[in-house]
Amino acid sequence: MHKTVFATAAALALSSTLSLAQDAPAVSEPRHVILIIGDGMDEQQVTIARNYLKGATGELLLDKMPVRGASQILTVEDKVNGKPLYVADSANTATSMATGVVTSPARIGTTAGSDQDIPTIIELAQTAGYRTGIVSTASITDATPSSFAAHVALRFCENPDQIEKVEYKGIDLGGCPQDMKKNGGPGSISEQLAVSGVDVLLGGGSQHFTPMAEGQNKTVLEVAQDEGYQILQNADELTAARPGKPLLGLFSPSTMPVRLQGEGGRISEQPEPSLLNYVHDYLGDVTLPESMECEPNPEFAAVPTLKQMTDAALTHLAQDNDRGFFLTIESASIDKQSHERKPCGSIGEVEQLDEALASALAFADKNPRTLIIVTADHSQAAQLLAFPSMFAKYPIPIYSPGHVSVIETPEGGAMMVNYATSNFIMEEHTGAAVPLYANEEGEGLVPPYLRQPEIFGIMKAYLGL
Amino acid sequence: MHKTVFATAAALALSSTLSLAQDAPAVSEPRHVILIIGDGMDEQQVTIARNYLKGATGELLLDKMPVRGASQILTVEDKVNGKPLYVADSANTATSMATGVVTSPARIGTTAGSDQDIPTIIELAQTAGYRTGIVSTASITDATPSSFAAHVALRFCENPDQIEKVEYKGIDLGGCPQDMKKNGGPGSISEQLAVSGVDVLLGGGSQHFTPMAEGQNKTVLEVAQDEGYQILQNADELTAARPGKPLLGLFSPSTMPVRLQGEGGRISEQPEPSLLNYVHDYLGDVTLPESMECEPNPEFAAVPTLKQMTDAALTHLAQDNDRGFFLTIESASIDKQSHERKPCGSIGEVEQLDEALASALAFADKNPRTLIIVTADHSQAAQLLAFPSMFAKYPIPIYSPGHVSVIETPEGGAMMVNYATSNFIMEEHTGAAVPLYANEEGEGLVPPYLRQPEIFGIMKAYLGL
Repeated sequence: MHKTVFATAAALALSSTLSLAQDAPAVSEPRHVILIIGDGMDEQQVTIARNYLKGATGELLLDKMPVRGASQILTVEDKVNGKPLYVADSANTATSMATGVVTSPARIGTTAGSDQDIPTIIELAQTAGYRTGIVSTASITDATPSSFAAHVALRFCENPDQIEKVEYKGIDLGGCPQDMKKNGGPGSISEQLAVSGVDVLLGGGSQHFTPMAEGQNKTVLEVAQDEGYQILQNADELTAARPGKPLLGLFSPSTMPVRLQGEGGRISEQPEPSLLNYVHDYLGDVTLPESMECEPNPEFAAVPTLKQMTDAALTHLAQDNDRGFFLTIESASIDKQSHERKPCGSIGEVEQLDEALASALAFADKNPRTLIIVTADHSQAAQLLAFPSMFAKYPIPIYSPGHVSVIETPEGGAMMVNYATSNFIMEEHTGAAVPLYANEEGEGLVPPYLRQPEIFGIMKAYLGL
Repeated sequence: MHKTVFATAAALALSSTLSLAQDAPAVSEPRHVILIIGDGMDEQQVTIARNYLKGATGELLLDKMPVRGASQILTVEDKVNGKPLYVADSANTATSMATGVVTSPARIGTTAGSDQDIPTIIELAQTAGYRTGIVSTASITDATPSSFAAHVALRFCENPDQIEKVEYKGIDLGGCPQDMKKNGGPGSISEQLAVSGVDVLLGGGSQHFTPMAEGQNKTVLEVAQDEGYQILQNADELTAARPGKPLLGLFSPSTMPVRLQGEGGRISEQPEPSLLNYVHDYLGDVTLPESMECEPNPEFAAVPTLKQMTDAALTHLAQDNDRGFFLTIESASIDKQSHERKPCGSIGEVEQLDEALASALAFADKNPRTLIIVTADHSQAAQLLAFPSMFAKYPIPIYSPGHVSVIETPEGGAMMVNYATSNFIMEEHTGAAVPLYANEEGEGLVPPYLRQPEIFGIMKAYLGL
């Protein structure tokens, strides 16, 4: 993003805000939007979590939501008028929801090809006098949260040390030199968040605030403090935080620890065919991974839960606020644990989302003009697989070519979860439309089917932006 | 199913009908239920079809349905009070929708473990004076269609030659000896359909009607003719069929040919890593299957479309009918083509479903008391995968461990479809909750979330059964 482009985008944001302010309904009571994003939370993930947490006939809180639809993901090549791509990442999908604009993979709040900054729902809400908040179990600088308040060409440009050129194990992943301040840009993601004025920023990612801010003699965290942020480092500080000053809670160096893990930390494994099976597919036999329960991840106790962060955000945003707020909440590791083939981790993160939803619904009970939307950004690799196989009667070894876990459910069943999109250490996203839910306030606003960028328009209209 | 058990089930059906008849609302105008089942039509399949048929920003007719929800699949082990299983087949899922009862895999209209016949929505509707119909692109004796009007312990007992013991390539798949007439049962599926009194039976599966009926000196087809069925063998006969006599249309020996196929009949293939990649995952390279378009399957021209069958069924069921009807329509090969790793086949079958839905909606426009429900029975293997890979920047070969197709879309994109649930010649089903849609008439009746057997209750209540 270049200086000139920034000016254009700012003008765009301004004109957009002005014209919308004229159209805005006369709002007599505060209005609130809570957008909850389950990263990678597709129907497979929801079903796997439901079966484990509530039993196959049980119900998540999600299932009780009165409005239900599907959201079609859109993304394009990184060029002007690029062709459609059919599988998205968390950067372009969050940008879709935050800005209403379809962009290319890995972009944060910027346009495909032309690299223009796009005004986000948070920026529009701020201009219109709303309070704003971002809560995530990922680094607050990660793709999903940051797309609501930052603008860079590449999601990995999370801090000043990681903006000019991003390397991972010696592999050049690109960079955002055009976004550096010395080139007229707004700096890395953490630098942008530090001066964003977003009232509540809660999540992981403290490591992205310790580098020195570009061209300044202080760290990014010190920049945030100078901007008035209260810095919070643990659940006690979160609980004790007083309203009146914006919050920056950074509860872990990177992604926050998840609630559940496989027994002894086990993850999915490849089925092991016997030697004879290598001779012919129909010979020999196969050993599947032993079944396991999910168990608490001991590291989880050290951080606040998503519900605790949500409760704190709601308290802070609602206090003495006669205008209202926009809050987005991400349960990030449904996705991240699925990349790493850890079904228990994903299950625990759906549970965290469901608990955060409970807090949001409780708030909406007391504050009727609260629109709650819950959705995912994209679908993921995990599949719930037949165990035993549908073809178990055939006297031959039948098994997934990928990695599987067999999870014992509390109701006495056994779920096989399959990860088979990639030979790499990380599974791929998939491209299905994702679940979309809303509370009563969404009736008539959230349709049964939409394209993901339309979520932006619904929220914008609700807030009269 | 035994004679004594049949008596019990019949009594159950009777008492159920009686008590329900008392509760039934006074119906002054005809009521109709059209249940459209996309076999294996999960969100991945719908998205893949949408992207191909309408473009990523386009809409299927499905997407315009005003009511949208999710249906949680339930199935259990084959014993009384068996534990839950988390992935279903088409027999138990169709039985769930047809009877409201959760049963075990491969069962048609019978209970898990106790093997009792369960009254179906079609049997209840017949008793209450409604006309009934079943349309499918599978054999009409296949699991989904037959579960609405037949009762056997095992789905493969499709005809009299295939009831005592079912073998496939020398593998014993079981049988339904208890369902044979000589043992007091109602016979094989085709024999049951031949005497079912269902007004319209249209689909494939003529081979299941050519065997001699058990204990009779005539074929199953002759039994059906004696019962008054007009036998139809092609689209011309279907068009020419006059109302007044029940229809048995058998348009192909087994599953009907599908509309689309891969170029030159190509199906998904395994990525081919180079020799060096076998030495280490990070070495060498990989060759993916060449991309292809979908093309018309020449065999499809020989059979009526699902829309043609639907139109004929609607005409026949509605003619001079002041009571109403129950009609179920299955697009079967979304599932079957996915088992065989043929994405183009599945896409064409979603298109057929969408066209049949158009006919159903047109009927409902003229007949307002028509409840249309569209859903799937279970989810399937296919996944829409990132192409190129999300990790394409890493200088190592990255590929699915399963079979993939790269499909060129008419809008100029490329979709990679992944099948990676099994090393076997057939892919497995998966266990996610499936899409659920309804027309305006379903508003307030079809909730945003339900368990699959509840679909039976909704239809039953709507018809006042």
